[in-house]
Amino acid sequence: MEKIKLSEGAGGEMMQKMISEIILSNLENKNVNGGIGLDELDDGATIPLGKSEIVVTTDSHTIDPIFFPGGDIGKLAVSGTVNDLAVMGARPLAIASALVISEGFPKKDLKRIIKSMNKTCKEVGISIITGDTKVIEKNKFDDIIITTTGIGIAKNGEIKPDSGLEVGDKIILSGTVGDHGMAIMAHREGFGFETNLKSDVAPVWDVVEAALNVGGVKAMKDPTRGGLANALNEMASKSGVGMLIYENKIPIKEEVVAASEMLGIDPYEVANEGKVIIGVESDLAEDVLEAVKKTKHGKDAEIIGEVTDDKHVILKTSVGGKRILETPVADPVPRVC
Amino acid sequence: MEKIKLSEGAGGEMMQKMISEIILSNLENKNVNGGIGLDELDDGATIPLGKSEIVVTTDSHTIDPIFFPGGDIGKLAVSGTVNDLAVMGARPLAIASALVISEGFPKKDLKRIIKSMNKTCKEVGISIITGDTKVIEKNKFDDIIITTTGIGIAKNGEIKPDSGLEVGDKIILSGTVGDHGMAIMAHREGFGFETNLKSDVAPVWDVVEAALNVGGVKAMKDPTRGGLANALNEMASKSGVGMLIYENKIPIKEEVVAASEMLGIDPYEVANEGKVIIGVESDLAEDVLEAVKKTKHGKDAEIIGEVTDDKHVILKTSVGGKRILETPVADPVPRVC
Ligand SMILES: Nc1ncnc2c1ncn2[C@@H]1O[C@H](COP(=O)(O)OP(=O)(O)OP(=O)(O)O)[C@@H](O)[C@H]1O
Ligand SMILES: Nc1ncnc2c1ncn2[C@@H]1O[C@H](COP(=O)(O)OP(=O)(O)OP(=O)(O)O)[C@@H](O)[C@H]1O
Ligand SMILES: [Mg+2]
Ligand SMILES: [Mg+2]
Ligand SMILES: [Mg+2]
Ligand SMILES: [Mg+2]
Ligand SMILES: [Mg+2]
Ligand SMILES: [Mg+2]
Repeated sequence: MEKIKLSEGAGGEMMQKMISEIILSNLENKNVNGGIGLDELDDGATIPLGKSEIVVTTDSHTIDPIFFPGGDIGKLAVSGTVNDLAVMGARPLAIASALVISEGFPKKDLKRIIKSMNKTCKEVGISIITGDTKVIEKNKFDDIIITTTGIGIAKNGEIKPDSGLEVGDKIILSGTVGDHGMAIMAHREGFGFETNLKSDVAPVWDVVEAALNVGGVKAMKDPTRGGLANALNEMASKSGVGMLIYENKIPIKEEVVAASEMLGIDPYEVANEGKVIIGVESDLAEDVLEAVKKTKHGKDAEIIGEVTDDKHVILKTSVGGKRILETPVADPVPRVC
Repeated sequence: MEKIKLSEGAGGEMMQKMISEIILSNLENKNVNGGIGLDELDDGATIPLGKSEIVVTTDSHTIDPIFFPGGDIGKLAVSGTVNDLAVMGARPLAIASALVISEGFPKKDLKRIIKSMNKTCKEVGISIITGDTKVIEKNKFDDIIITTTGIGIAKNGEIKPDSGLEVGDKIILSGTVGDHGMAIMAHREGFGFETNLKSDVAPVWDVVEAALNVGGVKAMKDPTRGGLANALNEMASKSGVGMLIYENKIPIKEEVVAASEMLGIDPYEVANEGKVIIGVESDLAEDVLEAVKKTKHGKDAEIIGEVTDDKHVILKTSVGGKRILETPVADPVPRVC
């Protein structure tokens, strides 16, 4: 009898295959009013409604540990949901928050998590408008899961699907890669608090709004599970294009490089939780970059490459060679979000 | 150190207290554009948008067992979400489906659950438009949790808040009480399959649509966790009214009465998953009842009582006495949905 594997819930190729074989193939109604639905496998779905598009996205957050250097599950949940709305081109409006808590969970920890959700919501100017609470017997589960669903809004025709890239577009990355995944892994391995490794978890609506205000944005994605490698490949394959990425342009922290060497984990394959990849038409790329660099969460942004008519995402390495940046099989760090 | 108790996730008074103390008091932004938000504690929230109201509701489903007489977690998740939209007065449109699965979960069970979700969606004419998949290590959790968030739509001013009741309104119940909770409990105790006890889990949009088409509907609620007793008390207290309920009018199956006596569980306090309570203005109550009785899920509907200027929900018992039907402390059956 076939069983679900950890890797089938970790972004990347294994998850895509499982979702398409078990989920997509057994569902018949997958979109509403011709909007973006399940078949597109984008960061969220859209419901066209008059002159607007309602955008919906959902994520269950199962991260272990729930408090980690740089954040906690509450900040992660709200940020992740805000970011999936933002990269669809939608202004975040509201969040539904469903909690599954184990019996015996400390109330002070729950309070801390809710306060963190509140702070993140306030930063973006959104509200938690509905929720749910379930409690599971402590011998069956000893943690907390937060499922946040986001509702956002865009004008008709202003949605940015992953498939929007065209040859010649520039690729902007809003900041350093690998921080979240590497911080979680280092923390689990017990050397998290001695280093400066910190999760980048943050809501990046500020970055996206600044980019949209300049114009020329074709497609966006938040490089969460499966990291930069997964997100770039998804955008390229959905758009039917390739990419040339200059490795020396990819912002990365020294301590992330060090941890990645120590742990043998590829920093391009681990989750980021406060970054956005923006595909922009060439003419406006410098202007978008400049606007993004002025935002709180986009200071370290760089143009990291461009869209080509190749079939692959090619990484031009720092030493001058080229290699294919493949879609990872799965995020190497389990339960990372 | 205070810890979360099972009863704090089981509907009823304990949950309401916990939510208000830990969640509501630590959140600042709780609605959007003046719509119904967290403070109303209604079945869902609303986002006014031009001439429409977007309605949002979310529920994590943690039921144990996941396959039970009359249904499964997939049917339960879609039905529960459809029903929370319906009782807000909204036409269900779309669902976001987030899965948390344990490593080692049988793929054939997952397939069966997805097919069941598909079937229920088709019955209502809605779509699953986005989702998420996480996998947890099997030594930490050995089950599946499905969080469904529903998006529905209503015309401006046509939302039915719990607080809409007025003295003189009639209370319609769409069918028999106690079926879901009693079936789950009996099944757990090992005598489920020898009896005819079956969950009533079903999407009741047909019932609600029929009622709305007649008119006069003031308030609705699906009596899930905490059962009929919890839902009637919530509607009454939010509307600032009382109720007089005629016990001999409450539809209930013989086998539910038998099981409730055997198990010592009050059938008015356990969850229903395919029922709706409809408060209707007196003049139109008979017409609404007739329309509801013609629907698939409303055949056994009855007018069970009326709204009074009392402070309590009073049950006029079959033998002629009166007693206060109190808000239960919690649903007596844990992990019932
Ligand atoms: N259980 C599921 N049911 C339906 N669709 C799903 C399910 N799981 C994932 N999907 C869809 O697959 C696509 C990819 O999902 P994924 O969770 O990787 O995206 P994401 O939320 O942007 O990333 P992350 O979860 O790492 O933040 C999305 O379109 C999502 O709607
Ligand atoms: N964790 C939470 N955060 C915010 N609001 C919550 C939370 N849990 C519950 N609520 C709110 O409390 C109210 C009651 O929730 P409850 O889950 O009992 O409603 P329901 O979904 O109609 O019932 P059921 O879950 O039994 O189907 C709702 O308005 C809901 O939005
Ligand atoms: Mg995403
Ligand atoms: Mg996401
Ligand atoms: Mg609920
Ligand atoms: Mg409800
Ligand atoms: Mg519900
Ligand atoms: Mg996701």
